Amino acid sequence: MLYFQNDYHAGCHPEILERLTRLRQEDYPGYGQDELCRKAAATIRRLCGREDLAVHFLMGGTQTNLTVIAAALRPYQGVVAAQSGHIHVHETGAVEATGHKVLALPTGDGKVTAAQVERLARSHQSQEDGAHEVQPKMVYISYPTELGTLYTRQELEALHRVCRQYGLYLFLDGARLGYGLTAKGCDVTLRDIARLCDVFYIGGTKVGALFGEAVVIANPQIAGDFRYMIKRQGGMLAKGWLLGLQFEALLEDGLYFRIAQNANDQADRIRKTLEDAGIPVLVPGRTNQIFPILSDSALKVLSQKVLYTDMEPVDETRRAIRLCTSWSTGDGEVEELCRLLLTAVHQP
Amino acid sequence: MLYFQNDYHAGCHPEILERLTRLRQEDYPGYGQDELCRKAAATIRRLCGREDLAVHFLMGGTQTNLTVIAAALRPYQGVVAAQSGHIHVHETGAVEATGHKVLALPTGDGKVTAAQVERLARSHQSQEDGAHEVQPKMVYISYPTELGTLYTRQELEALHRVCRQYGLYLFLDGARLGYGLTAKGCDVTLRDIARLCDVFYIGGTKVGALFGEAVVIANPQIAGDFRYMIKRQGGMLAKGWLLGLQFEALLEDGLYFRIAQNANDQADRIRKTLEDAGIPVLVPGRTNQIFPILSDSALKVLSQKVLYTDMEPVDETRRAIRLCTSWSTGDGEVEELCRLLLTAVHQP
Amino acid sequence: MLYFQNDYHAGCHPEILERLTRLRQEDYPGYGQDELCRKAAATIRRLCGREDLAVHFLMGGTQTNLTVIAAALRPYQGVVAAQSGHIHVHETGAVEATGHKVLALPTGDGKVTAAQVERLARSHQSQEDGAHEVQPKMVYISYPTELGTLYTRQELEALHRVCRQYGLYLFLDGARLGYGLTAKGCDVTLRDIARLCDVFYIGGTKVGALFGEAVVIANPQIAGDFRYMIKRQGGMLAKGWLLGLQFEALLEDGLYFRIAQNANDQADRIRKTLEDAGIPVLVPGRTNQIFPILSDSALKVLSQKVLYTDMEPVDETRRAIRLCTSWSTGDGEVEELCRLLLTAVHQP
Amino acid sequence: MLYFQNDYHAGCHPEILERLTRLRQEDYPGYGQDELCRKAAATIRRLCGREDLAVHFLMGGTQTNLTVIAAALRPYQGVVAAQSGHIHVHETGAVEATGHKVLALPTGDGKVTAAQVERLARSHQSQEDGAHEVQPKMVYISYPTELGTLYTRQELEALHRVCRQYGLYLFLDGARLGYGLTAKGCDVTLRDIARLCDVFYIGGTKVGALFGEAVVIANPQIAGDFRYMIKRQGGMLAKGWLLGLQFEALLEDGLYFRIAQNANDQADRIRKTLEDAGIPVLVPGRTNQIFPILSDSALKVLSQKVLYTDMEPVDETRRAIRLCTSWSTGDGEVEELCRLLLTAVHQP
Repeated sequence: MLYFQNDYHAGCHPEILERLTRLRQEDYPGYGQDELCRKAAATIRRLCGREDLAVHFLMGGTQTNLTVIAAALRPYQGVVAAQSGHIHVHETGAVEATGHKVLALPTGDGKVTAAQVERLARSHQSQEDGAHEVQPKMVYISYPTELGTLYTRQELEALHRVCRQYGLYLFLDGARLGYGLTAKGCDVTLRDIARLCDVFYIGGTKVGALFGEAVVIANPQIAGDFRYMIKRQGGMLAKGWLLGLQFEALLEDGLYFRIAQNANDQADRIRKTLEDAGIPVLVPGRTNQIFPILSDSALKVLSQKVLYTDMEPVDETRRAIRLCTSWSTGDGEVEELCRLLLTAVHQP
Repeated sequence: MLYFQNDYHAGCHPEILERLTRLRQEDYPGYGQDELCRKAAATIRRLCGREDLAVHFLMGGTQTNLTVIAAALRPYQGVVAAQSGHIHVHETGAVEATGHKVLALPTGDGKVTAAQVERLARSHQSQEDGAHEVQPKMVYISYPTELGTLYTRQELEALHRVCRQYGLYLFLDGARLGYGLTAKGCDVTLRDIARLCDVFYIGGTKVGALFGEAVVIANPQIAGDFRYMIKRQGGMLAKGWLLGLQFEALLEDGLYFRIAQNANDQADRIRKTLEDAGIPVLVPGRTNQIFPILSDSALKVLSQKVLYTDMEPVDETRRAIRLCTSWSTGDGEVEELCRLLLTAVHQP
Repeated sequence: MLYFQNDYHAGCHPEILERLTRLRQEDYPGYGQDELCRKAAATIRRLCGREDLAVHFLMGGTQTNLTVIAAALRPYQGVVAAQSGHIHVHETGAVEATGHKVLALPTGDGKVTAAQVERLARSHQSQEDGAHEVQPKMVYISYPTELGTLYTRQELEALHRVCRQYGLYLFLDGARLGYGLTAKGCDVTLRDIARLCDVFYIGGTKVGALFGEAVVIANPQIAGDFRYMIKRQGGMLAKGWLLGLQFEALLEDGLYFRIAQNANDQADRIRKTLEDAGIPVLVPGRTNQIFPILSDSALKVLSQKVLYTDMEPVDETRRAIRLCTSWSTGDGEVEELCRLLLTAVHQP
Repeated sequence: MLYFQNDYHAGCHPEILERLTRLRQEDYPGYGQDELCRKAAATIRRLCGREDLAVHFLMGGTQTNLTVIAAALRPYQGVVAAQSGHIHVHETGAVEATGHKVLALPTGDGKVTAAQVERLARSHQSQEDGAHEVQPKMVYISYPTELGTLYTRQELEALHRVCRQYGLYLFLDGARLGYGLTAKGCDVTLRDIARLCDVFYIGGTKVGALFGEAVVIANPQIAGDFRYMIKRQGGMLAKGWLLGLQFEALLEDGLYFRIAQNANDQADRIRKTLEDAGIPVLVPGRTNQIFPILSDSALKVLSQKVLYTDMEPVDETRRAIRLCTSWSTGDGEVEELCRLLLTAVHQP
């Protein structure tokens, strides 16, 4: 089978295992208070161009989302997200488990707009007695979104401004950050993100690490006592140096971005094939996720050789699916996939 | 510095890294639904002598404790534990974060007795209107305890009986299970534990793995929909096969128990030294934790060369500390430690 | 000012105060375990035509909703509701505070349809690995809805069937139950509700009581240990007999339904006036809530004499508002309101 | 039967019912934003001698405790209480349900000492990495305590000082505040309490009201958005004016204190009888709770005529019980009780 159903089916970049093998004999203090974590945090601060950032390492995306949100909000406050946002649809109520409501906004392309946020915040604040509704306090966005789209710098600036104006935090889920920042035409940099967000994370699990997300906190109101929050939510890894090691391997000389770039390049080749064959997509994109719309009969053929993620029915006879390339996707796999796609579509 | 402050300062057993390196190129389905996890689960069932056990793999102890407890209890129910229990004192309220109270019982040696449990359960059930108090529903014990002591089989049988009688679940925290089962004079087997407990776990983090705890659920009332609970609490590892790989490496041919045995043997040598030198201990034990009582002046000397965990003052001039050996502790380290201990005690 | 902004601005029906005055000197056991609560519960069972119902008395709607939902669901389960449902928009995250997600469905008229529920439940259950999403387990409906509409018996039967089929609980919020059951053309009885729902409540606060909601639980899986849940959520009233007294006063000889009928009759008079004057409404209805659409200039005039609830803009120059009659609304007030409405609309 | 099992078995003071009857016809804005609540709040500020206090009215003690604690603490913080504290033993985990741990301190007389608090806070703050334990942030005390004892002004001052020094909030549960402030020899005033505590409440339920607790918040860090917290926790009463009415009736001219005084006087008479008869008590006291120790055979006789609360066994043949007088206890009842006590004790 060809694996295109997600970007975490493969192990990890060899550089990580080499370091792990090299450092296996060392002793480290527990819980992330070690030299490797300190180094990786320093590297992240350098790449972000800010010395005042708090950096913590967690094991997975859901854990990171729930810990950041629970750390930032008071009990009656909620987090605004696109209706397609990962925290809203794909985390088994992990945010609600910390007592907070996700305030979902309609979206076609996976993005939240500044105008939507403004409308919501203004509507709440203009009430005579707002205490009967959840108070919006944080905006959660994914970069890239769950539909593979990207915010432009202008859109991020607008979100930043509206959040400032209404006293909301801006939180960017960067589980696939590498794929976003290296996408063709992307006009956003890591420094922009560190400047515009109150908190965000650099995803490792989906971009070459065994596991791990690096949380970067710019707003001191969220940063305070964050280690207590990690521990309370069950996210404190005893051998925390494992996380520092991986992020240092990925970030110190740009490996993270080079391997993310590969995923985008491979995805571009698939997109080209789809376009040439006249196969429509659900949402256009430039990152490692592609959402072709295929007939049920084509899918029947394709599914015998390719693992993909089913998305939703588009009409009576067609469905959208998701194909993911990843840091490890090779030319051969992509060629084979494209061949199978064309075969499936053009079967008699 | 000599590392004796815990049993997770070192990396992992080389066998694990070898397998990881070998399998790095493979593709795996996500979230623990892979061949490696299935194999490790089968091995655990075989070692437990029961085919009907549900097995899940989680990343750390606190996460495992909170997930199991939240899965087992209804909202108004609480978990009974020794006052020294890890969930009561050392998890930053992670159990309370799931809405459950820890009902703490006094203890001198870290153990909960069947008589204590019976008294508590009977007292609650005998009330005319019990609804004003937390309903005890689960008993949490650690094996070995946080003070390094071990329940005898008879004690476990008694706890099992009283739990059955009063409708309580018995949950055994086996973060250091290997060190317990291989301790000199231990009369408990893994099969006993699987027979007497409703749920327990086999700790990997402290016994040679990079990270990981294997939860074994015997009671179907707790097992139902457990994967939903893991995800909701942020404990679902994307590359779940990492956990299966490690447990299979440790368990398939007994490596886990051999390396645990090493820690106990090294601890016995330290105990012998202490005894010969007339240095008292806080609680006698046979596992990898040792709790010597030393004068402040001896500690001042020792602490320059040895990392240990401070426990508590014993009197005006003496404190108890904890020394941990581990699966990786070598003869040389132990000899050096013993020499330093004697020097520290016998300084002029 | 004329009070039409809600149905709980007035004190309580005189019958309640008379009984309270009469019984003030009595001593009662605490926490609802008294003769008055027992009598009221028996009356409710009689009216529902079922002896096997558990009945509990709580103080307010939000408290009732959160307690019932938290009692019924396991941690990873969610409650399905209309997007306009009270628990979704108007309870400051009280359900999420118990750790549960509200799964909101789009609606035009405030109702949830059986087809929507089926789609959602089937979609969840058909997944290979559902553990990444909240598991739908309960359907919450309001009767009448927040938009004043009513489910027909056929619609309730259909909801009941689909809930049975997919293993969901059906929970009916009857904060305004009296106004629903006595509406013109209503084909649903209290017995129907007791037969079709797993749990529901009879609202007192909005129908003549000082405060209070009577929870009726038909499903023993929800009924178990419900008093523990009440206490845990802070809803256990020390002088619980206050609630029994009120419900017995309202229900023993039909007072509840007579005074509810009055509200509907008065609302019908207002509806007639609106219709005659050609004033449109947001949603047509037959209960005590009316949603006229008025121009901003008309509202400017009206708001000087009448208290109402603002709902939402309908277009550039018009807004929908809510007018509520209640058990205590008199002819004079309604005449005055109608006069003011016409004046406001017909101003030059 | 004679009711001495608690101080909330009787209805309410007639003054309250008179006002209720008088005001029944009035219309009020909902949710406590009415004239009656404003007046009662102003009266409380006047009695406390401070204009800067936030005042809110809630329905019961458990609800008040959980709402205040959840409003004050960040998720990983805990509340320190005596092991006999109401929140620790008698609220079915209502505080834990909001995600917070109760850090229980041993006590003989129901009181927490400043030295205990200091030890705990210092021990936590002195840790190198405190993130593995719950962070103590609030001290909860009851005045009078659950054992009927009273803090002296000096003790309160000491608690205040140590809380300030270590950054903890001081929260006083005044469910029985009236009985405390009017006890013989009490050297604490309402103004002292308002000066020394960050937040406290004046209990109505147990001192003559139908229900209700008046929360007084001196610390603006706790006061912010408190109405959101009330609503979220299900404690927002639709007809909130009911609470304002009661507290104004009780407080505007000192009725609250006069009727509390009666309870203490009646309790003193019982204490005198016990003393004269040589009947020991568990804890000496001066408020409306008395804890005589009686033989099982005496209790067998007494329980046929008197309702009391069972406390605990004292030795093989004797138990401590609790007798409560209340604002409504009359001379006749006390004489009868004393007679029955002596008969029970002196039976052949």
